[in-house]
Amino acid sequence: MIRPFLTLGALVALGLAAAFPAIAETVTDFTLPNGLEAVVIEDHRAPVVVQMVWYKAGSADEARGKSGVAHFLEHLMFKGTDDLAPGELSKVVEANGGSDNAFTSYDYTAYYQRISADRLELVMRMEADRMRDLILSQDDWQTEREVIIEERNQRTDSDPAAIFGEQRRAAQYLNHPYGTPVIGWRHEMEQLTREDALAWYRRYYAPNNAVLVVAGDVSPDQVKALAEKYYGPLAPTPDLAPRQRVQEPPQLAERRMTFADARVARPYVSRSYLAPERDPGDQARAAALTVLAEVLGGNGATSVLGKALMFGTQKALYVGASYDGMAIDDTTFSLIIVPADGVSMQEAEDALDATLAKFMTEGVDPAQFARIKTQITAGEIYALDQVQGLAQRYGEALASGLSVADVQDWPKALTAVTEADVMAAAKDVFDRRRAVTGWLTHADAPSEPTEVTQ
Amino acid sequence: MIRPFLTLGALVALGLAAAFPAIAETVTDFTLPNGLEAVVIEDHRAPVVVQMVWYKAGSADEARGKSGVAHFLEHLMFKGTDDLAPGELSKVVEANGGSDNAFTSYDYTAYYQRISADRLELVMRMEADRMRDLILSQDDWQTEREVIIEERNQRTDSDPAAIFGEQRRAAQYLNHPYGTPVIGWRHEMEQLTREDALAWYRRYYAPNNAVLVVAGDVSPDQVKALAEKYYGPLAPTPDLAPRQRVQEPPQLAERRMTFADARVARPYVSRSYLAPERDPGDQARAAALTVLAEVLGGNGATSVLGKALMFGTQKALYVGASYDGMAIDDTTFSLIIVPADGVSMQEAEDALDATLAKFMTEGVDPAQFARIKTQITAGEIYALDQVQGLAQRYGEALASGLSVADVQDWPKALTAVTEADVMAAAKDVFDRRRAVTGWLTHADAPSEPTEVTQ
Repeated sequence: MIRPFLTLGALVALGLAAAFPAIAETVTDFTLPNGLEAVVIEDHRAPVVVQMVWYKAGSADEARGKSGVAHFLEHLMFKGTDDLAPGELSKVVEANGGSDNAFTSYDYTAYYQRISADRLELVMRMEADRMRDLILSQDDWQTEREVIIEERNQRTDSDPAAIFGEQRRAAQYLNHPYGTPVIGWRHEMEQLTREDALAWYRRYYAPNNAVLVVAGDVSPDQVKALAEKYYGPLAPTPDLAPRQRVQEPPQLAERRMTFADARVARPYVSRSYLAPERDPGDQARAAALTVLAEVLGGNGATSVLGKALMFGTQKALYVGASYDGMAIDDTTFSLIIVPADGVSMQEAEDALDATLAKFMTEGVDPAQFARIKTQITAGEIYALDQVQGLAQRYGEALASGLSVADVQDWPKALTAVTEADVMAAAKDVFDRRRAVTGWLTHADAPSEPTEVTQ
Repeated sequence: MIRPFLTLGALVALGLAAAFPAIAETVTDFTLPNGLEAVVIEDHRAPVVVQMVWYKAGSADEARGKSGVAHFLEHLMFKGTDDLAPGELSKVVEANGGSDNAFTSYDYTAYYQRISADRLELVMRMEADRMRDLILSQDDWQTEREVIIEERNQRTDSDPAAIFGEQRRAAQYLNHPYGTPVIGWRHEMEQLTREDALAWYRRYYAPNNAVLVVAGDVSPDQVKALAEKYYGPLAPTPDLAPRQRVQEPPQLAERRMTFADARVARPYVSRSYLAPERDPGDQARAAALTVLAEVLGGNGATSVLGKALMFGTQKALYVGASYDGMAIDDTTFSLIIVPADGVSMQEAEDALDATLAKFMTEGVDPAQFARIKTQITAGEIYALDQVQGLAQRYGEALASGLSVADVQDWPKALTAVTEADVMAAAKDVFDRRRAVTGWLTHADAPSEPTEVTQ
């Protein structure tokens, strides 16, 4: 997530803060008898609507050995149904001046269209149609398997930083499926079948496993009537088991990893710590970690790491801290330092650790803390002002086990974070025994799995 | 495995080498119509018999989240059946002057009795009885779950080297269930139910998933008649799926790990590399790795690492190399160095790496190689001379996907290994990108999962 910090001061000055309660009040939700949860976000400033359907099924729900099937199915959902020819849905959306897409993550798979508000019925009819009536011809699924493997080639295998991230994540999780890449391990993707895809589809693509979010120039009554008409008749999956993944054992031994590749132009050091996620009704720790990431690594010059390492000692070309609490199970808190020219990896890591240690002793600078709190609040307001961002926020949260109330409480949880909370969160999360430290370095020779390095 | 090298020279001198072909010829095998494979090893030197039943089901066959169930069931197999009271089997064996036990590993679970040869029918009747007729009362399984958790306390959690090994193994495997401990992750063991145990039992404990090995003062005809009488009537599990575990993705980034614990008296450095296993009809690479382990780390003074590091620079108090090719999927080749007093962990690791690098350049010393080949051959002969060891060897191999012929070819495969084979195997296996290097160190404070180390 890229937060547009530079413009936030201006936004706050323009009085957009006042928009927050107004928008929050325009969110309504209902559940259809077949289990479909729906959220309607009214925003009448422009005559557009966004429809998103979020399925509570992501790569972390895949059976062992079937990695990639969630994303495979995402691709296959653009094939035909009993009423739509392959590719027709996207063509119709485009012909009506709209756009559509989809994405898969660890905890969900989501589909959306953005279109003129008077075409909501059109996209809802098509989206509802493919929730239960997908048809996969032999040709469709085989071609699409080639496509996802090629996507892996492009996005992962040709990018040393992506490979590095994948190997690090596999080392971070000792047991939990978050250690498996969303796109899938290649050797398992190559074995995925039509039956795998259909079994996934039949189990998870159902109204009682989906969240419908409609945002824009619509009324709740209108959305409800359309949802009842199109999604209402769909049969739920019976006896859908509760979502339960295997959990991590205690992580007791710090891990380190080096990935050397000839394609690496700019080496860096990363460190990720296992960290708690946002839990329903219990978001205080996650809020403190969110603020901690901003205090340490947000917004360049004013952050603790930026000030010390980019502008102070100038050992770093870049430093960052990141945390995303939106997950069903334990997530990660990550740090990165890109050494400046002439600074070794070890020097960079040592400088990072020394800066962290100093921070743990000295605590948060009150002036910086106040600035960051303002920025974060402004960022939340800014996000609320984008209709698609809002739809994303509700959909992601509801698909990840949170409630509408949790989403609405989140800005308050962030505002409530104190300096002491941030330091307590830092003490808790910075346990090296739950960390993976990785070095991405340049190698003179090309990297092949079978190459001998010793 | 502890190889009794010190006495081997003597054994070879005594002419035991001649015993090998004689014993090999006394091995026969047959399969019952219900799928039970049986191996009979005749050895009439003493009036005893060993019965082993090996199930092709180990911890690597467990469903995700059910770790420990294979071992749990092993414990529960000593409860009652329709014909035996709980604990009766062991009591009867003991009352008849015998002994019995069981063990669980990644690839199998095995049960055995050693008893006077005239009591074979007794133990076969009881072993066959519990293959299909186990009864688990509420009391039985709950008590036994406490027992296995306590076993974990004793064997793993109270032993820093065991915890270290468990965390290292979890880091070694990015995808394959060999990364999960045989005993199970505690939080998953605590959730195991009677239904989990019974589902495991019903699926895997069946004649078409078992290998019977009978060794000792018996004849093949006698064993076959008894096996037909007792195991013959048992129903196979229908549609038993082929054994197929998820495989590793390419391991591309070297991992390192540090585990610090207050209970560590003697720190050490370990390094494990992913390594190929013995495959049916294809054991040459595994044979070369077996010899490599001996060349590098076997038998103290004469090994490459021992000579250089224990007796040369004296940087090590102990060095070792180990490889066990008996596995269904990729196994590990491991090195260990225990630094001498005053030698730092880094110094020890550097010395280990320097010695390895020198070995890779200089190759195998021909005189040492000849000595080791003799020792290994003698070790094989020695193993063949122990009736229980032989039963173990056949049972383990057949439960791990090898054949009787593979077991009988193994000494020849070892004998055929050349110096060039050893160096080629070393070049192939010593790829740091597939390695985990671990430091087990002493910590001043006690180690708790929630403790802050930074």
